[in-house]
Amino acid sequence: MENVGWLYEFLVAKAAEISAAGSQRAAVISISLFVSLLCVCIVIGHYYEENRWLNQATIAIILKLFLYMIFFLSGLCCRLRDLYPHEQLLFIYLLPPIIFNAGFQVKKKQFFHNFGTIMLFGGSGVLISASIVTAGCKYMFPRLKLGNLQMRDYLALGTIFSATDTVATLQLLHQDETPLLYSLVFGEGVVNDATAVVLFRAVQRFEEAGLDGKAALRMIYEFVYLFSVSTVLGVVIGLIAAYVLKSLYFGKHSTDKEIALMALMAYLSYMLAELFQWSGILSVFFCGIFMSHYGWHNVSGSSKITSKHAFATFSSISESFMFLYVGTNVFNVNIWQLVDVRQSRITELCYAAGANSSREGGICLSNVRHLQLCPCVVIIWWSGIMRGAVSIALAYQQFSTSSGTMNADYATMIYSTTGVVLFTTLVVGVVTKPLIATLLPHHLRHLEPSSPKDEEANEDGSSTFLRRSSLSMLLANPTSAVHSLWRGFDDSYMRPFFGGGGPVRWEP
Amino acid sequence: MENVGWLYEFLVAKAAEISAAGSQRAAVISISLFVSLLCVCIVIGHYYEENRWLNQATIAIILKLFLYMIFFLSGLCCRLRDLYPHEQLLFIYLLPPIIFNAGFQVKKKQFFHNFGTIMLFGGSGVLISASIVTAGCKYMFPRLKLGNLQMRDYLALGTIFSATDTVATLQLLHQDETPLLYSLVFGEGVVNDATAVVLFRAVQRFEEAGLDGKAALRMIYEFVYLFSVSTVLGVVIGLIAAYVLKSLYFGKHSTDKEIALMALMAYLSYMLAELFQWSGILSVFFCGIFMSHYGWHNVSGSSKITSKHAFATFSSISESFMFLYVGTNVFNVNIWQLVDVRQSRITELCYAAGANSSREGGICLSNVRHLQLCPCVVIIWWSGIMRGAVSIALAYQQFSTSSGTMNADYATMIYSTTGVVLFTTLVVGVVTKPLIATLLPHHLRHLEPSSPKDEEANEDGSSTFLRRSSLSMLLANPTSAVHSLWRGFDDSYMRPFFGGGGPVRWEP
Repeated sequence: MENVGWLYEFLVAKAAEISAAGSQRAAVISISLFVSLLCVCIVIGHYYEENRWLNQATIAIILKLFLYMIFFLSGLCCRLRDLYPHEQLLFIYLLPPIIFNAGFQVKKKQFFHNFGTIMLFGGSGVLISASIVTAGCKYMFPRLKLGNLQMRDYLALGTIFSATDTVATLQLLHQDETPLLYSLVFGEGVVNDATAVVLFRAVQRFEEAGLDGKAALRMIYEFVYLFSVSTVLGVVIGLIAAYVLKSLYFGKHSTDKEIALMALMAYLSYMLAELFQWSGILSVFFCGIFMSHYGWHNVSGSSKITSKHAFATFSSISESFMFLYVGTNVFNVNIWQLVDVRQSRITELCYAAGANSSREGGICLSNVRHLQLCPCVVIIWWSGIMRGAVSIALAYQQFSTSSGTMNADYATMIYSTTGVVLFTTLVVGVVTKPLIATLLPHHLRHLEPSSPKDEEANEDGSSTFLRRSSLSMLLANPTSAVHSLWRGFDDSYMRPFFGGGGPVRWEP
Repeated sequence: MENVGWLYEFLVAKAAEISAAGSQRAAVISISLFVSLLCVCIVIGHYYEENRWLNQATIAIILKLFLYMIFFLSGLCCRLRDLYPHEQLLFIYLLPPIIFNAGFQVKKKQFFHNFGTIMLFGGSGVLISASIVTAGCKYMFPRLKLGNLQMRDYLALGTIFSATDTVATLQLLHQDETPLLYSLVFGEGVVNDATAVVLFRAVQRFEEAGLDGKAALRMIYEFVYLFSVSTVLGVVIGLIAAYVLKSLYFGKHSTDKEIALMALMAYLSYMLAELFQWSGILSVFFCGIFMSHYGWHNVSGSSKITSKHAFATFSSISESFMFLYVGTNVFNVNIWQLVDVRQSRITELCYAAGANSSREGGICLSNVRHLQLCPCVVIIWWSGIMRGAVSIALAYQQFSTSSGTMNADYATMIYSTTGVVLFTTLVVGVVTKPLIATLLPHHLRHLEPSSPKDEEANEDGSSTFLRRSSLSMLLANPTSAVHSLWRGFDDSYMRPFFGGGGPVRWEP
């Protein structure tokens, strides 16, 4: 630890230099610091992987908190925010790879098999949580004479505190040991994020005139419209990419071009959705699903390996960088001076109420179908408490102004969001590991309440089975029936045209 | 082609929107356009790969020229330059992956075996070319009463027009068919770029006081100093990365972390060199060499494949983007109004004289050693005419001011550089393919003047052979002797410690 003094002096000297230097020099210094920090996080995180209490995310945050204090002391953070406008950095560069990778890596069979449960948790959870947070803040703030927020801000606040971050839990679950639990936690996290973002977009289009029945209907229409067009755009671009990859590289493969085309088309789907002011997150998520379902089968063997790992790496670097960057605001004096602590506490209280109710609601609704084992429910409930990258990105989108100046209400809202994200990541991150170890002892992990193997057995005869009883199945069990119908259509028409046909179905 | 009218109207409408919109909206529109264009380039480039006249770079440029006209008409380009400051975009984000990939992919055995020849071409070529361009411009401009450039600008101009771009030629040569020619063209291009950049940095430190003997000595000292410290920094970080990868992941591999660590450490070497105001390009190049020589052997099989392809893809996307971005300036009216055509023509003339003399000088010097076959010499000469990404980056570094305003001299110099780069890429790009086809018919390609197989045969007994006659070898053939000494040291000490030991030596 004797190097810390030296490091501190170095940083103070650099900070003084930055104040005088041009923007390129300041960028070089801050990037050097960030990249060094990321490397240290990866290395230390790996060493403590087997530790009972720590995981990589937690170590990263502890390290970051330590460094933020130095940043804070050296006044570096204020300079950083001038360099990179928040919204642009978060929404244009960091979020797309994270969400695309989520879609690309999702286990599609599990995801669509449990589609009903996932949508219940994800979709209804967001709606419940958003309603509670919005209603709570709307009720409390005016009564306590706190702040001067508009209806649109309250609605936005609800969606911001509804986007869960399940990454930390996923790091500790194993896809092979607990496939159902993994797919529920993962799928729910993604659907939750997507729903929150689409709802947020719908709220942004909301015109300030009080929330009556007509306005509510209008918002529901916007929500459905955004959800549909964004999904369709993502699917279409994913299919185009698959077709291009298939028709172009038949017989002669070029790994570099294949990877470049996959990454660029995915990014294009995000950017086009943003261009039309739809939801880029939803587009790029579905583009990822379709690209891995069809396009991925058309590329060479090394492209398959490369795409899988390169996208995952890019996503995790983006995520670490986002946390690093956002944390600089916690130690920002300019924001501190504006923050109203009471207002912040109430917001956090509403978040806690919303998060818990939405989980309980979701669990009650879905309880009858799949989940008989108590530990799984606890883990799903637990994983839904965390808030992450999407919350922060949305908060900046709503409450930061392009000029950099801020009013006190907006500063408080950003402060609360950052606080909740850092707190849940830190505390939940530390507690999750022992919790899972206690709830899921190794001999229990293989006891899965609903095994996908029964489904697997039907697979060979599915198309004949389908023709016989599709209507009765649809009435009895809608999700499975839709899934079977889709499988038949997929095998007969989609795969032969877009790729992924043949007897072997290896999923990334 | 009936879609073009629609596209034009769409772009004009978007351009009008951009003028009014905030910076995030403008960024979304421009990124959407750029990414679409990149996708189209890749697809069309692939279709015309077998064509006699075209290659991917040429098609990209033709497409770009077409779109630049639309950009130009719609006034989009002016807006774009406000969004992204040139220097920062080029030097901080786009150049590092290009150069790192060059170091990572270089065939080290061939590269170091022909180190002498490569250094002759690369190092001396730059010095000859830079001297001629500097002297020519310094002599002509004052006599014709053109411009008001300082001595430092003339020196910078010399280095800018000395950085060759051999990518287009390399796309058409095959590493397996003509290993010597490939390694010469490749290695020379990289050494040339690195030398030009280091020379450019040395020139930037040059204090304005006339170029007397003392100043020249000072510049040589700066050159040697920058070259050494940057190389050492790159080597040290490459070795640290190799050691970390080896000690950390022994037994348990995590592909994502390995790739992230490799990419981040490489980027760190670039950024640290820039932080100390050394040459990031040289650092990241040597970091790439050492990372592929040691670190690459310590990672898992899928990391090996992923790193190889992901870095190559990232590099080629960066390069395409750089060209796309830079080309917007060709159709920039604000610069056009300032350009002095006579001054520009003279600069281009000096470039032509410099480029040719440096090639001839290099060829004369090295002729005795390796190259008896005329076609190879012609191709090396030809490949050295092109100017590319590094020239443009340096020109912006020297001649663009952070405020965005420009004086006439600086505008002319940027205009000349961009013109030379686009012209050589277009013309040389079109002519190279038939030239190589004519000069190197298939039956000739396997006739290599100096075969590396003799060297290969010695490999097994090299360490005993080395002890017997290292001094006599050093006197007879300095490069080979140094190479053998290094091989002995490498096998005995470096590989066991940093990785890459064992009987199989598979190079990326």
